Amino acid sequence: MRLRNNPKANEILENHKDVVVLNTKEHKGHWRNIFDNDNPIFIEIGMGKGDFIIENAKQYPNINFIGVEKFPSVIVGALKKYDDSSYDLKNLRFMKEDALFLNEVFADNEISRIYLNFSDPWPKKKHAKRRLTSHTFLPIYQKLLKPDGELILKTDNRILFEFSLISFQQFHMDFHDICLDLHHSDGYEDNIQTEYERKFSPFGPIYRIVTTFKGE
Amino acid sequence: MRLRNNPKANEILENHKDVVVLNTKEHKGHWRNIFDNDNPIFIEIGMGKGDFIIENAKQYPNINFIGVEKFPSVIVGALKKYDDSSYDLKNLRFMKEDALFLNEVFADNEISRIYLNFSDPWPKKKHAKRRLTSHTFLPIYQKLLKPDGELILKTDNRILFEFSLISFQQFHMDFHDICLDLHHSDGYEDNIQTEYERKFSPFGPIYRIVTTFKGE
Ligand SMILES: C[S@@+](CC[C@H](N)C(=O)[O-])C[C@H]1O[C@@H](n2cnc3c(N)ncnc32)[C@H](O)[C@@H]1O
Ligand SMILES: C[S@@+](CC[C@H](N)C(=O)[O-])C[C@H]1O[C@@H](n2cnc3c(N)ncnc32)[C@H](O)[C@@H]1O
Repeated sequence: MRLRNNPKANEILENHKDVVVLNTKEHKGHWRNIFDNDNPIFIEIGMGKGDFIIENAKQYPNINFIGVEKFPSVIVGALKKYDDSSYDLKNLRFMKEDALFLNEVFADNEISRIYLNFSDPWPKKKHAKRRLTSHTFLPIYQKLLKPDGELILKTDNRILFEFSLISFQQFHMDFHDICLDLHHSDGYEDNIQTEYERKFSPFGPIYRIVTTFKGE
Repeated sequence: MRLRNNPKANEILENHKDVVVLNTKEHKGHWRNIFDNDNPIFIEIGMGKGDFIIENAKQYPNINFIGVEKFPSVIVGALKKYDDSSYDLKNLRFMKEDALFLNEVFADNEISRIYLNFSDPWPKKKHAKRRLTSHTFLPIYQKLLKPDGELILKTDNRILFEFSLISFQQFHMDFHDICLDLHHSDGYEDNIQTEYERKFSPFGPIYRIVTTFKGE
């Protein structure tokens, strides 16, 4: 289903220059020019087929959204949804990029919020460093986020969430809001569901945490 | 059921001087004399009818256990279980005390571990300060615990657990182990159940966290 080596995927990306940003590193420090305004920029890392970020872009026109995804073939799925929607979303972009290299793409403090939704759990302990909430990635996020910028994690994977709480605490991050059963809690009526969330929420709780990095 | 003002309860406690410690403050700094050895002392705050601490005392003869409980009538329930059991548990004591005053009962660093099991949730926000994991109580625990002494919280109450994670993080405590579904996890085969745990675990997950206070 997820055709990681779809040879046509890159071609399709090239033909969508209105929404797909190609030479991402050239825009480091100048992302405001892409959107032609000074609105805050929120990114989702590992956006998958884009349900969440497209819906956010619709609901919040005064925020700029960038969906980051490692696999071109997955972005093609997002482009399909984008094309099918009748909206002209000037506040939305996609990019093919690995989270590992985001400091080459965004300048310090350039981003106001990061969403991690249903990140790959890498369940084996020996792969823990690959989890997007491990200490491999936290210093990268800390650099590109504004001092008060939030990192918001949502997942159905218990092991990943338990790991992330400890990883965040050990990185001395601040916890602002924790919900251990999002779909049965008050105060989350504005929750925008992701593709995985729709698929997996019938089978167990959805966990969510809002954190920030400590200022220097 | 829980006869908080049972006038006979205090009388019953007085008649159980072998296991109930009465003039608790007199023993501050000298609890080792009560047990007549130098084994570590673990306490449970809010022991209820004592299932957990009695079973611990049976399984771990080289640890001294003290069950702390605010209501004499509840301790009477624990005494009943203690009397019914055929064990002669020299490493177990009960005391009637409010967690608020534990620094008058225990000297600094006198205790090696604190258990909080199914603490009263105080669900209303305006009562949050009464929760046994609030910043009202954490400084008390920090004083009486040894530097590496663990505070271990177990509960089925989601709101209390969410609150506690944030409260602990904001008090700059270290997280060592978090489990968001104890009864369906590997590695917890030695879990000793409490009365409330047996009653409520069929209805939802049991949460658990192991934390320590940062050394000075
Ligand atoms: C399990 S899917 C979740 C998709 C979507 N966020 C959702 O909730 O429906 C995780 C996505 O993250 C992407 N991903 C994994 N590691 C990544 C990385 N290092 N950088 C960018 N994307 C990554 C995967 O390719 C995949 O599309
Ligand atoms: C919900 S019960 C749980 C009993 C037992 N730990 C269990 O898991 O079955 C909570 C107990 O904590 C006691 N308690 C509440 N606040 C306390 C305080 N400040 N100091 C000591 N005990 C307290 C209550 O009286 C009650 O017996």
